[in-house]
Amino acid sequence: MIPKFKRLPKHIGIIPDGNRRWAQNQGLAKEAGYDHGITPGFDLYQICLELGIPEITFYGFTVDNTKRPPVQKKAFQKACVDAVNILANRDASLLVIGNHESAQFPKELLPYTTRKIFGSNRIKINFLVNYGWKWDLNQAFNNNSMDSSYFHEKIASKDISRIDLIIRWGGRRRLSGFLPVQSIYADFYVVEDLWPNFRSEQFYEALMWYQDQDITLGG
Amino acid sequence: MIPKFKRLPKHIGIIPDGNRRWAQNQGLAKEAGYDHGITPGFDLYQICLELGIPEITFYGFTVDNTKRPPVQKKAFQKACVDAVNILANRDASLLVIGNHESAQFPKELLPYTTRKIFGSNRIKINFLVNYGWKWDLNQAFNNNSMDSSYFHEKIASKDISRIDLIIRWGGRRRLSGFLPVQSIYADFYVVEDLWPNFRSEQFYEALMWYQDQDITLGG
Repeated sequence: MIPKFKRLPKHIGIIPDGNRRWAQNQGLAKEAGYDHGITPGFDLYQICLELGIPEITFYGFTVDNTKRPPVQKKAFQKACVDAVNILANRDASLLVIGNHESAQFPKELLPYTTRKIFGSNRIKINFLVNYGWKWDLNQAFNNNSMDSSYFHEKIASKDISRIDLIIRWGGRRRLSGFLPVQSIYADFYVVEDLWPNFRSEQFYEALMWYQDQDITLGG
Repeated sequence: MIPKFKRLPKHIGIIPDGNRRWAQNQGLAKEAGYDHGITPGFDLYQICLELGIPEITFYGFTVDNTKRPPVQKKAFQKACVDAVNILANRDASLLVIGNHESAQFPKELLPYTTRKIFGSNRIKINFLVNYGWKWDLNQAFNNNSMDSSYFHEKIASKDISRIDLIIRWGGRRRLSGFLPVQSIYADFYVVEDLWPNFRSEQFYEALMWYQDQDITLGG
């Protein structure tokens, strides 16, 4: 039973951290954790659909993450491909965003680097895959013009809107390069539990907290 | 008595929020709060000096904040001028950073828009004054070149290093435009109490929390 909320975010960013720590706690190899992060993402998507949240962005992996051991890298790349394939068969307007000219970008996701609509187009879902904040911002150089005041409209992630609420699982209180331009005024909520232990109540608590935040955008 | 810490941040960002709410709680006009934010800043500076923290950045005000009522704007502009004047007579390597070509920038602070050294140069202190994240990043356009990979070296705030720990007073959990490039991997700690109620124990608790964080930079 989903609670009633008096005010909901229009765009939620999800940092699903703690897969490796979860695997270790289970006595598994670190890389075994990523596969257990797919079902939670799908559960969260279902709740957002029922609530009518218009946009979610999932943090898949970043350019910095690809410095990890190859066995882990393969595991998180595969988890991203699997997650996108699950959602591609549901209601979603899907965009995968990241440096797709790099060998680190899974080829299977190339069709999603321009937004693809599935089903009734009720929700925008963005996945950061081999995303780099420098890569994103540097794109603005290639779109240079005399008028440099519309920064958001020139970066690589220009099709992703301002984020209202970022929820990070796994206890860490940092953005780790998550869409710096869109996160400027985002409210940041941390769930201590690890992502594979996702429970809907954790998400509801974040939304409860968010509805009481005073949104000023600096004014 | 300052506690011992096993690991300290090299650069701390301070968001001293809650001055207006504090004033209202005291039965004062909102704008009366800013003046009560100066002594806490100086207390915090003294502790950093004793601990040997090499760099602190204070969030003065942003371009977005200047949309507030004129009486409030005058009050926070004056508080910034007063705070900088106090520190200019102490040990500090001072930099005021923000759009100083705008009328919103206090003229008294123009001499500090290039770094000025006072005393024995034991600590770098940066003040964001009429700072705007768009203004900062757009500077990179003016420093355009064929090689666009060194984003940090091209923005207006290039003289400000990566931030390890951001502490925000006043309970809100957002960056509100605070140096997006330098904050990418910053750990974010929120003090519920309002900034004019600053107590050194709040700062020590933030440092205690920070020393147990796992710093990975995405690796």
